[in-house]
Amino acid sequence: MTLQQVTFTLPAYPRGFHLITEAVLRHIPHMPHTGMLFLFLQHTSAGIVVNENCDPDVLHDFESVFNVLVPENMPFLKHVLEGPDDMPAHIKSVLTGHSVSIPITNHRPALGRWQGIYLCEFRNHAHGRTVVASVLGHTVNDH
Amino acid sequence: MTLQQVTFTLPAYPRGFHLITEAVLRHIPHMPHTGMLFLFLQHTSAGIVVNENCDPDVLHDFESVFNVLVPENMPFLKHVLEGPDDMPAHIKSVLTGHSVSIPITNHRPALGRWQGIYLCEFRNHAHGRTVVASVLGHTVNDH
Amino acid sequence: MTLQQVTFTLPAYPRGFHLITEAVLRHIPHMPHTGMLFLFLQHTSAGIVVNENCDPDVLHDFESVFNVLVPENMPFLKHVLEGPDDMPAHIKSVLTGHSVSIPITNHRPALGRWQGIYLCEFRNHAHGRTVVASVLGHTVNDH
Repeated sequence: MTLQQVTFTLPAYPRGFHLITEAVLRHIPHMPHTGMLFLFLQHTSAGIVVNENCDPDVLHDFESVFNVLVPENMPFLKHVLEGPDDMPAHIKSVLTGHSVSIPITNHRPALGRWQGIYLCEFRNHAHGRTVVASVLGHTVNDH
Repeated sequence: MTLQQVTFTLPAYPRGFHLITEAVLRHIPHMPHTGMLFLFLQHTSAGIVVNENCDPDVLHDFESVFNVLVPENMPFLKHVLEGPDDMPAHIKSVLTGHSVSIPITNHRPALGRWQGIYLCEFRNHAHGRTVVASVLGHTVNDH
Repeated sequence: MTLQQVTFTLPAYPRGFHLITEAVLRHIPHMPHTGMLFLFLQHTSAGIVVNENCDPDVLHDFESVFNVLVPENMPFLKHVLEGPDDMPAHIKSVLTGHSVSIPITNHRPALGRWQGIYLCEFRNHAHGRTVVASVLGHTVNDH
């Protein structure tokens, strides 16, 4: 059993939900036969989740609904110096989560047919986001 | 240290929150003395979480409150072809999460006294949902 | 590769979001060079998340926004015998999550510069909350 880590920075994405399955997996070329893939985002105003990988309208609707769930400019907010998108971004990041844990089967992430990995960018003008990928498993070199 | 995986499909549940602790654990008869249990749902319109295991009213209230948090027929939605319950189901699935990570202690999930595992079924008419269970630990056969 | 567990109880915190990074890490003195830290809260009306570690106003705003997201005294709730804060606490606990998975690099949690660990206490009058910490990794004694 081994645990290998790779840290990489995704390109900057505009505000919204983005399918990053391939952008993530190109940083993890060798997966064990059986294992776990843990992705951890080192940021507090973005999220990483697994959801629908096919229809771009789903990504659009995620952004719309999250903006209704956590509107900007709520009058009682105190943390406002970093802009009206900042505190809502922290809240949204907690609602989505900052990490995912995906099983690895037959050297591939065991995602369902319709599942992909999303980066949820909640800031208006963000830099690239850094991800720590940890790959746990048997026979990393058996491929 | 070993990592073992088992994939199984739960029976179809009606829309709502359902306690599935026993339905899950019957698929994992042998747990290590000390380890981790990772459950991953291979779907994008259902969730899996840990919460209160005792009062059925809690399950009822979860369904009611999630329907208020993410109502159907929001007029700005674009992904509507699969029915009014579909896009809200994707949103709810991200809010609850699609996976849980539970420590294993003394060959049992180290759940708190009031904790159970829920399947959150967000579609009106779903088929059975498939779960990948990964069991990490020492001395799997020491039981 | 080893997996070590320690179970500890945090002191009671008042309702709200609290930075507990140091309170957690003092229970885990020896981390492996490379690994994973899994924290699991054995409760159903509190949460554990990772978010901004610097400005106390952020913690205040989290409490405010979560109270808007899941208000008390929704008239359709059935699980009300444990007080108006109880059922909302269960919902909030599912929205935040009850566990975090953090990579370990160079014997330290690989948190981003602005990331800290929060306890989210959703009850008005809670006792101390119990956490199971599982530390997975190579060379636990190599420090």
